[in-house]
Amino acid sequence: MQKPSNPTSRPSPKKENFLVHLAIWHGKDIPSSFRLYKSELLPESARILGYARSKLDHDGFIGRVTEHISKEEDKKPWMGSGIESGTTKSYFYMALPPSAFFSVAKGCRQHLQPSDTESCNELLNNLKPLFSENDTYRIDHYLGKEMVKNIMPYRFSNTLFTPLWNSTHIDSVQITLKEPFGTEGRGGYFDEYGIIRDVMQNHLLQTMSLVAMERPIGRDAEAIRDEKVKVLRCVKPIKLEDTLIGQYVGNGDKPGYLDDETVPKGSLCATFAAMVLWIDNERWDGALDKAKVEVPGSLYAGVSRNETVMRIQPNEVIYTKFNNKSPGLTEHTMVTELDLTYKQRYENLQIPDAYESLILDVMRSDHSNFVRNDELDAAWRIFTPVLHQMEKDRIKPHPYKYGTRGPEKESEFVKKYGVEQLTGGYTWPKQDVDQH
Amino acid sequence: MQKPSNPTSRPSPKKENFLVHLAIWHGKDIPSSFRLYKSELLPESARILGYARSKLDHDGFIGRVTEHISKEEDKKPWMGSGIESGTTKSYFYMALPPSAFFSVAKGCRQHLQPSDTESCNELLNNLKPLFSENDTYRIDHYLGKEMVKNIMPYRFSNTLFTPLWNSTHIDSVQITLKEPFGTEGRGGYFDEYGIIRDVMQNHLLQTMSLVAMERPIGRDAEAIRDEKVKVLRCVKPIKLEDTLIGQYVGNGDKPGYLDDETVPKGSLCATFAAMVLWIDNERWDGALDKAKVEVPGSLYAGVSRNETVMRIQPNEVIYTKFNNKSPGLTEHTMVTELDLTYKQRYENLQIPDAYESLILDVMRSDHSNFVRNDELDAAWRIFTPVLHQMEKDRIKPHPYKYGTRGPEKESEFVKKYGVEQLTGGYTWPKQDVDQH
Repeated sequence: MQKPSNPTSRPSPKKENFLVHLAIWHGKDIPSSFRLYKSELLPESARILGYARSKLDHDGFIGRVTEHISKEEDKKPWMGSGIESGTTKSYFYMALPPSAFFSVAKGCRQHLQPSDTESCNELLNNLKPLFSENDTYRIDHYLGKEMVKNIMPYRFSNTLFTPLWNSTHIDSVQITLKEPFGTEGRGGYFDEYGIIRDVMQNHLLQTMSLVAMERPIGRDAEAIRDEKVKVLRCVKPIKLEDTLIGQYVGNGDKPGYLDDETVPKGSLCATFAAMVLWIDNERWDGALDKAKVEVPGSLYAGVSRNETVMRIQPNEVIYTKFNNKSPGLTEHTMVTELDLTYKQRYENLQIPDAYESLILDVMRSDHSNFVRNDELDAAWRIFTPVLHQMEKDRIKPHPYKYGTRGPEKESEFVKKYGVEQLTGGYTWPKQDVDQH
Repeated sequence: MQKPSNPTSRPSPKKENFLVHLAIWHGKDIPSSFRLYKSELLPESARILGYARSKLDHDGFIGRVTEHISKEEDKKPWMGSGIESGTTKSYFYMALPPSAFFSVAKGCRQHLQPSDTESCNELLNNLKPLFSENDTYRIDHYLGKEMVKNIMPYRFSNTLFTPLWNSTHIDSVQITLKEPFGTEGRGGYFDEYGIIRDVMQNHLLQTMSLVAMERPIGRDAEAIRDEKVKVLRCVKPIKLEDTLIGQYVGNGDKPGYLDDETVPKGSLCATFAAMVLWIDNERWDGALDKAKVEVPGSLYAGVSRNETVMRIQPNEVIYTKFNNKSPGLTEHTMVTELDLTYKQRYENLQIPDAYESLILDVMRSDHSNFVRNDELDAAWRIFTPVLHQMEKDRIKPHPYKYGTRGPEKESEFVKKYGVEQLTGGYTWPKQDVDQH
């Protein structure tokens, strides 16, 4: 059994920290706080304050917060009725659409009425700098996911990768996300944004910046975010020709996007998108240009190229596909994997929810896994032109059936770049090597 | 389930091939032939002829050959009593000490009396070129082991390794062999040779040449053996200062080497040896010189260097040790593995015995996995000077207890070169990641 090897843990949250939790109910933040509490990582003075669009009184809120807590004693800490005075620091967690942001901040000021004026003033004084950069923690919950948090240690603590991590040795990086459900009544919300704004400009681009950035000079938040911004600024704005969009239609069993009554009729909203990003710097220049599916000049004809996969979810796994002699009385090679399937390998494995991890980061005042102002700017600069062009030219998405991976045209689209589509669906074990 | 990906199989043995099996009984060749027969890879006309030091008549031989065969019908093919005529090609398998080699060849001529003169002449005509290079298959059975046969495909069919496989990125290569038993009555034989001649000059050096050689221009036997000879010729003769020898003593339970009655009194024979080989070519120049246990200038203090292990036996496994974020609410890294444990990963796994694999190679006329004349020359040039010096100067081996990994001095010895000893004993799963 191996124990962690280096002592670089972050400090525990300070006991005097005080968490005010202002949240549109979205099912993630309350359970995350509960797990932190159970792990004894939540400060004793932490308080949760609920805010939601649905009408909910105090008892209703408590009931909803505690409905999945089985032990009576665990429910107690969630049933307090007021805000204690004398606290020194407040966190406001706002999972809000931009339109609701200011009115909530204002409401917060009106309805929080602590008995101690001094602490109220302090609270109000704290409220203003909450919007300054240093006191803002912009959540992209992908940055809280275990495997995304592992990209930096994986890349930069293994010297093995140092000579390999560039376009000389990497033909392409594919970042894929598949959500196994339709809008299902939430089409009205989704249609305002579309899949590109919903997951690509944020989650996938954040992931890409961690994969593609230069080595930061340190592990502090600013050093890391400086490098993320730098690589984002090297990405050319996406061209329409490097974009393929799709919209799902019914598959007989499940309805299509336009069949959702909450979706505007004739919507051109993309529910699928494939986009190619070109990074114009020394490390990545020339990637894709030279991508070929076949390994050139190999002693072993027809072997596959190597492929390293970090699966974020579900079921964390890292594997590297490589060619190996097929065991037995044969000279064949076969594609096989060096595997690290977390559930198989690790005992006492507890993967924290992304929000749990990020809330703890806030309490530790660690900005590393939050999006800085200029990252947002750089990200939109990449996506805005093509988004506007698509809207202006009313580009029609390609239809694909609900539940499939995307439009048929996708295969032709990726082939243009000499890239093979990842097959996905990797599971471990077993692999048949029977030669007979 | 993945099937082999490329069609580079060698031809099946020709049916007219005829196998004569002349063997000092050493427990490997007959069972190997039997497995080939069961796999339908043995030509129908193959015949086995036994030769051994122990007195054994025909029935005794048949009895011994068939004693572990459970099915009566499987025994039949092993119970023939003569050599058939009209055969076109013969293989003589000689697992003999050099001193017995010529007398056996002579005896073979006298006692094989096939009825057909023509085929007898042919047989005799075949006997002479049997000793020419092209008709000689010098067995080093390590070259028949599954994982040793995998070194070339692993290195040369994965472009991932191309930029890494040199002294810029590899600090050291360790090739280790541990036999978990003493001489146990065979000390007389062993004492003539010692551990260096017994396993290092052959098995370990052959393995090393496959790991260290340049990429051959093809996969034919001569292309491969040309490269093996080339790298061996770049190895400087081993110096005494780069050598550590040991001899085991009793551990209370098992006797020491000198306690074996078949061992000459006061023998200085090494039963343990550690030797450092320096390869004087562009690929490997500078290895060890710069070896350091700590990763320099890492963002992650104190992390371990990467380590790739191909375990030949027992229980074939390939794994790469790397640093990974310890899962959970921590920023620690931990050493973990990307793993390919054959038994866990592969269904229908049948690892052939090394002899089984090599006998089949002979029937396929494939010399790739046999030692060429000039390889032997090059190998002895590396080892002979230090062997003679040790004998001349009567270098005393360091004592170590039976069953331990070697003399205590070993740890100091490897540290001289900035190398960490492999820990060994890798098993999969599980690894504890509990943070509490």
